[in-house]
Amino acid sequence: MKSMEVVKLVEVTRGDVVESVHRGVVAVVDSEGKLVASAGDPRYLTYIRSAAKPMQAIPVLESGAASHYSLSLEEIAVLTASHSGEEEHVRVVMQVLSKIGLTAAYLQCGTHPPLHRPSAKALIAKGLEPTVLHCSCSGKHAGMLILTRFNEWNLDDYYKLEHPVQQLMLQCMADFAGLNPEEIPIGIDGCGVPVFAMTVEKMAFSYARLAQPESFAPERKEASLKLREAMTAYPSLVAGTGRLATDLMKVVGNKLVAKDGAEGVFCISVPAKGWGIALKIEDGHTRAVGPAVIAVLDQLGLITGEEKELLAIHTRTELQNFRKEVIGEIRPAFTLK
Amino acid sequence: MKSMEVVKLVEVTRGDVVESVHRGVVAVVDSEGKLVASAGDPRYLTYIRSAAKPMQAIPVLESGAASHYSLSLEEIAVLTASHSGEEEHVRVVMQVLSKIGLTAAYLQCGTHPPLHRPSAKALIAKGLEPTVLHCSCSGKHAGMLILTRFNEWNLDDYYKLEHPVQQLMLQCMADFAGLNPEEIPIGIDGCGVPVFAMTVEKMAFSYARLAQPESFAPERKEASLKLREAMTAYPSLVAGTGRLATDLMKVVGNKLVAKDGAEGVFCISVPAKGWGIALKIEDGHTRAVGPAVIAVLDQLGLITGEEKELLAIHTRTELQNFRKEVIGEIRPAFTLK
Repeated sequence: MKSMEVVKLVEVTRGDVVESVHRGVVAVVDSEGKLVASAGDPRYLTYIRSAAKPMQAIPVLESGAASHYSLSLEEIAVLTASHSGEEEHVRVVMQVLSKIGLTAAYLQCGTHPPLHRPSAKALIAKGLEPTVLHCSCSGKHAGMLILTRFNEWNLDDYYKLEHPVQQLMLQCMADFAGLNPEEIPIGIDGCGVPVFAMTVEKMAFSYARLAQPESFAPERKEASLKLREAMTAYPSLVAGTGRLATDLMKVVGNKLVAKDGAEGVFCISVPAKGWGIALKIEDGHTRAVGPAVIAVLDQLGLITGEEKELLAIHTRTELQNFRKEVIGEIRPAFTLK
Repeated sequence: MKSMEVVKLVEVTRGDVVESVHRGVVAVVDSEGKLVASAGDPRYLTYIRSAAKPMQAIPVLESGAASHYSLSLEEIAVLTASHSGEEEHVRVVMQVLSKIGLTAAYLQCGTHPPLHRPSAKALIAKGLEPTVLHCSCSGKHAGMLILTRFNEWNLDDYYKLEHPVQQLMLQCMADFAGLNPEEIPIGIDGCGVPVFAMTVEKMAFSYARLAQPESFAPERKEASLKLREAMTAYPSLVAGTGRLATDLMKVVGNKLVAKDGAEGVFCISVPAKGWGIALKIEDGHTRAVGPAVIAVLDQLGLITGEEKELLAIHTRTELQNFRKEVIGEIRPAFTLK
C-alpha cells in the first residue's frame, strides 16, 4: 500500500490557540518530471478536478477547431474556466455557442446559482432563476461542444466517458501527465463529465509540460502557448471577481498560469522555469488554498513582496468576526523540502 | 509538548478514489471524568465555540432571572441557539428582549444573513437587510442581556471579558468542565464575546455533567434539568430547519441533548448514561460533522437503526452533482477505542 502522508499546511488561530488545521500535499516538478520541491507525499492520489480544464481545452486548439470557428482569446480563456457566473462569463460562453451555431440548451452541465454572490443576489432580486450558463463549468462544456460539432459527433451524449470527445480529453490529460489513459481512475465531476484521478506529482508534471511544451508535436506546442496567452490575457474569465486564480494572474501578468480545482486543488505553470506546481488541501477546504499557494510561491521566490502585498486578501492573515474585529489569523505552517 | 494526535474520521469518495479526508478527535466521558471511548487524542486543545451555549444559559436559570422574567421553555431554548435566522428564531428572541424591556438595538452580536437559505433569499426578495436578530448568536446575546438587566449591570459593554456577565459565563463553563477559569484560554467569538478553549475531553466532561448534574448545588442541578427540557422540547429553536442538532433531538426525543459549535465542534449529553460526547473536525468543515456524529452514536449503541434511517440526510452517504447524479459518498472511517 502506498504511503499517503499529508503535512500541516495551514493553521487557523483564534487568540493564542490554533483552532483548526488544514493538511495537504504540495509538489513542484520540472518538465522532465523531476521533483523540485515538495511538502507531504507527492504520490498522494486524488482528483485533479477543474485544474484539468487547460488540458481539456488543448484539443480544441490543436485540432484546428478554434481557428475554424474563429475563437477569440477571450473565448479560449473561458473554455478553461471555473467561472463565477458573472455577466461577462455568461456573455462569452454565449458567444462561443453562437459561433458554433448552438444554444445553451445543448449544455448538459447542470445548473447552480452564480458563485459570485452579488450576481446570485442580482438574479434573486430580479426574480430570475440561474441557468446552465451560470454553471461554473459552462465554458468547459462549450469547449466539448465545439469539438463535438467540429467532428460531427453526437451532440446529445457528449458528457459520457465513451463519447469520442471525452476519450480525446482523457488522452490529452494522460499525455500531459505522462500516464496511459488506463492508469487514470475516472470519477464523475460536479458537472457530469469524467474527471481524472492522479498523484499530486503528476498534476504538477502536467502543468510543467504546459510551462515547457517543447517536447510536444508542433500543434500541441502551439496550442499550449496560445492557451497560456489566453488565460493570462483574460484572467477574469478563468475564475472571477476576487478569486485567487484570477487575482494571481492579474497581479503577476503572464509569469504564472493558474487554475483552481474543487476540493482544495490548485495548479500553476511557471513558464520561465519550466515548472509545474500542484497543491491539494486534504480536506478540500477553499479557505486554506490561498494562504498555502501564496506561501509556496513565496518560498520558491516566484512572487515579489509587492505582488504578495497585492494578493493580501488571499493570504487573509487576519480573521475578522461579524463585528469586524480581528480575532485570529490563517497562516501557512510548512516549509517546502 | 502535549500530543495532539488526530485520526481520520470521515472520507469523501468520488468513483473508486478517496478524494478528500477529514481528521479529528472524539471523546466520550462519564460524569466522573472517566474516558469511556475515544478516537484520536482526547487532549486535543481547541475552542468549544457555540457548544458552550448551554453552559452560558445555565446562569440565566440558576440566578432566578428566568423565573423573574417568566421565560417560557421556548425562550430558554433560544438562549442556547446557534439559530438559522428563521422567522420563529427572530420572533422568540424578540419575545425575550421584550420581557426584559429592551429592543434589538441592545444586541451587540453583529449582523449576517440568515443561515437558513430560504429565509436569506426571502429577505433579499423583499429588499430587506438582515438585522442583529438574524445573527445566529442573537439568543445567546439576549441571555447575556437578561442577566445584565437582572443584576443592573452596564448594558453597553456586556460583551467584554471584564464585564461581570462574561465572568459569570466563564466561571460556569469552568465549573462544568472541571477547570479553573484561568486554565481556559480565551478567544473572541464570531459574535464578539469571549469564547473558551479546552481539550475535547473537557468539552465531553462538561456535557457529561449536564447529563448527570447530581453533584452540583440544587439551583444548578435544577437549571440543568430545565435547560435539557427546553432544548429537547424545542429542538428547532436550538439550530434550525435541516440542521443536525435540531433533527437529532427531533428524532430521538429527550434521549440526547445536542449542540453544535463552529469549526467542526459537536457535543452531546446522554442523560441515561451520564455521558458527554464531544467531537472536533480538525479542519472545521461542517460536512464531516453529521457522518462522524451519527457514526459515534451508532458505535456507542445510542441510536436505533430506525433513528439512523430518519437522520440519513445528515450521514449523506451519497454525494450528488449539479445534475443530481450519485458520484461518490461521505463515509465514516474510524472505530472508537
